[in-house]
Amino acid sequence: MPVTNGKVIFKSIPKGYPEPGKTVVYDDSEKIDLESLPIPDGGFLVKTLYLSVDPYMRGRMREPDVKSYAPPFIVGQPIDGYGVGVVLKSKSSEFKKGAHVYGTFSTYIGTHNPGLSRNATDTCVSEHQNYIVFPNRADLMVLDNKQKLPWSYYVGAAGMPGKTAYMAWKEYSSAKKGETVFVSGGAGPVGSFVIQFAKMDGCKVIASAGSDEKVEFMKSIGADVAFNYKTSNTLDVLNKHGPIDIYWDNVGGPTLEAALEAANVNARFIECGMISAYNTGGEPIKNIMHVVAKSISMFGFIVMRLEHKYDAQFYKEVPELIASGKLKVREEVWEGLQSVGDAILAVQKGTNKAKAVVHVADE
Amino acid sequence: MPVTNGKVIFKSIPKGYPEPGKTVVYDDSEKIDLESLPIPDGGFLVKTLYLSVDPYMRGRMREPDVKSYAPPFIVGQPIDGYGVGVVLKSKSSEFKKGAHVYGTFSTYIGTHNPGLSRNATDTCVSEHQNYIVFPNRADLMVLDNKQKLPWSYYVGAAGMPGKTAYMAWKEYSSAKKGETVFVSGGAGPVGSFVIQFAKMDGCKVIASAGSDEKVEFMKSIGADVAFNYKTSNTLDVLNKHGPIDIYWDNVGGPTLEAALEAANVNARFIECGMISAYNTGGEPIKNIMHVVAKSISMFGFIVMRLEHKYDAQFYKEVPELIASGKLKVREEVWEGLQSVGDAILAVQKGTNKAKAVVHVADE
Repeated sequence: MPVTNGKVIFKSIPKGYPEPGKTVVYDDSEKIDLESLPIPDGGFLVKTLYLSVDPYMRGRMREPDVKSYAPPFIVGQPIDGYGVGVVLKSKSSEFKKGAHVYGTFSTYIGTHNPGLSRNATDTCVSEHQNYIVFPNRADLMVLDNKQKLPWSYYVGAAGMPGKTAYMAWKEYSSAKKGETVFVSGGAGPVGSFVIQFAKMDGCKVIASAGSDEKVEFMKSIGADVAFNYKTSNTLDVLNKHGPIDIYWDNVGGPTLEAALEAANVNARFIECGMISAYNTGGEPIKNIMHVVAKSISMFGFIVMRLEHKYDAQFYKEVPELIASGKLKVREEVWEGLQSVGDAILAVQKGTNKAKAVVHVADE
Repeated sequence: MPVTNGKVIFKSIPKGYPEPGKTVVYDDSEKIDLESLPIPDGGFLVKTLYLSVDPYMRGRMREPDVKSYAPPFIVGQPIDGYGVGVVLKSKSSEFKKGAHVYGTFSTYIGTHNPGLSRNATDTCVSEHQNYIVFPNRADLMVLDNKQKLPWSYYVGAAGMPGKTAYMAWKEYSSAKKGETVFVSGGAGPVGSFVIQFAKMDGCKVIASAGSDEKVEFMKSIGADVAFNYKTSNTLDVLNKHGPIDIYWDNVGGPTLEAALEAANVNARFIECGMISAYNTGGEPIKNIMHVVAKSISMFGFIVMRLEHKYDAQFYKEVPELIASGKLKVREEVWEGLQSVGDAILAVQKGTNKAKAVVHVADE
C-alpha cells in the first residue's frame, strides 16, 4: 500500500532570514510502497521520527562554491540535519529491524573534503523526509536508550547540541572554581547546558537571552545573573558582575564586543556560533585588539572534531544526568514536516522558546 | 665627580602617533655623584648600555585608569622598557660589579595586579636613564654571553622580541611540515624570527612588510613568498599562495581580515600584536565569523607568561643559533637617549629598518 514520502525541499538561497514556503517547501508528491521497496545487502529502511532544527543550518543555505565547515544545501534537493528514526526493514547485521538510529551530517565531513561540496550520492538518516533507504551504515549509530528518555532528546540534550556544550566546555574552558562565566544565548539547548556545566564546576554564571521568559528559565537552571539583552545593556551588566574569565559565545556581534570589553586577562572565548551574523551579515568587531592586550584565547570549533575524544564519555554520563534530573532539559516540539520552514525561521529569529524539534511521525 | 643622569621623561599622552619632544622629552638636568651614591645592602648601581624600543610601548602611553597587560607610563616620570646594563657598584652577592644585566617590566606584572596601576616604588633596569640604583634584584638576570654576541642583541634577537617569536611559535603554532604560514610585519625582530622558525619546521612561508627593502630582507632569510602590502593586495597574494594554516599577526586590521578570509579549516592565529590599531584606533573586523565557520583558534598572549616554561631552552639554543649564523639578525641602532622619541615614532610608523635599539653608553 503506497504511503506518502513527504520531503522538505531546499527551494532557494535566502538573502536575509529564511522565508517559509520560499526558502524551503514541503513536498508530498512522492508515494512509495514500503513493502516492495528494494533494500540492498547491508542496507536498511528508516522511518524518520524526530528531526532537529538548529542555528547552524542557516550557514548551509548558501551558494555551493562558498566554503564552510558544513556542506551547502542543494537547491531542489531535500535538506538534511540531525534526526532519530526507527529501522523498518533491514539487511544489515548491525542496524536491525526495530532499532532506533541517530545520524549526523558527518557523512560529508568524514568522507569528503570538509567545507567543500556535498557529494550527490551522499545520504543521511536525517534527510528531511519520511522514509530513507540507507545502502550502508553511513554515519549512523544505534541508540540503546537505557534510561527510556523521549526519543526527541537524542537530537537535543542527548544529541548534537548537548555534545556541543559538553565537549567544548571540557576541551576549551579550563574552568576553575570561582571563575566568572558569561553565556549568551543561554536559554537554548547549548547555552542552557553550558550554564549547568559551569555551575557544576563551581563557576559564577552570567547569562543572556532575548525574552523575559527565557531569563526566568536561565535562573531556574542556576544562572547567578540572567538578563534580557533587549532591555538591559550587556556591557553594563558585565561591568557590574564581571570581569569574565570564560565567554561562551552563541551570538557574536555587539555581545562579543561587550565580552571583549569586560574580559579578564587570560580569558577563554569559546566561539560556538554567531547567530547575530547569520542572516544579516553581522556587525564588525571594533575591539578585537583586546585579544592581544588581555591574552585572550578564542576557540572556534565544530563538535564533530571533538566526538572521537568525548563520545563514549558523553553517552555514559549525559543521558543519566538527564534521567536523574541533574541536567534540566527543555524543548519545543513542532508538528510535522510541514512545520520545518517555520521552525527554521523561529530559531534564526530567536522567537523559539527552547530546543526546536520536529515531530515527524510515531513509530 | 658629578655626571649627568639623562632621562627620557613621559611628558604627555599622545592622541595619535607619539610626537618626539611632546610625548617624550630628553631631560639632562640631573647631576649625580656616582662615588657618593648610597647603595643599600643587597642593592647595586647599573649603568645603562642599550635600551629597546618596541611596538607595545604605544599601549603604555595611555590614561592610567585604562587596563591593559603592561602598566601605563606615568606623566612626568621616566619611561621604562627592556634594557641591558653593567653593574658599576654592588652590595649584592648575585649582581656583582662588572656583571651585565638584562631586565624586563615583569616587575610590575609579577608582583602587582596585571594590567593595573604601576606602583610608585617599582623600579626597573630599563628605566630610560643613564644610571639606576636597584635596591634588590627586581626582575633582572645576569647575562653570561658565552657566544660574545653584541650586548644589544640581548634586547632584540636574544631578548624579548626573540623570546616572543620562539616561545609563542613553540606554544601555539602546532606547525606541521608542509603547512602554509603567513607572517605580517615579517621584517621586524619578531616576524623575521618567525619566518626562520617556520622554515626550520618545514613550512611554506608567505611574509608581508611595508617596503621593498624589507621584502628583500624577508626573502634573504627564507620567505618563499614576500610582498610589500602597500603595493600588493594582501588577499590576492594569500588566495594565490594559501590557504593559510598558521597566521602570525603583528598588525591586525585589514591584514587580519584578509588572513581570516584566506584561512584554512583548523587554522591557528597567533595574535602577537596589532600595530595598525595602536595609533589610530584601528579598523573594525568584518569577518570574525570565520573563527567559527573554519574552526580557527586565536591566541592572544604576552611573552612573560611563557617565560617560565621556555626561558632555559631559549638561552640554551638561540644565542648559539645566532652565533653560528643559522638565525639571521638585523638591527638598527639609534644613538643616545636623545633619540628615543624618534625611535619610538619610527617603530610605530614602520619607517624603521629593523629592530630598533638605542645605544645609550659604552661601558
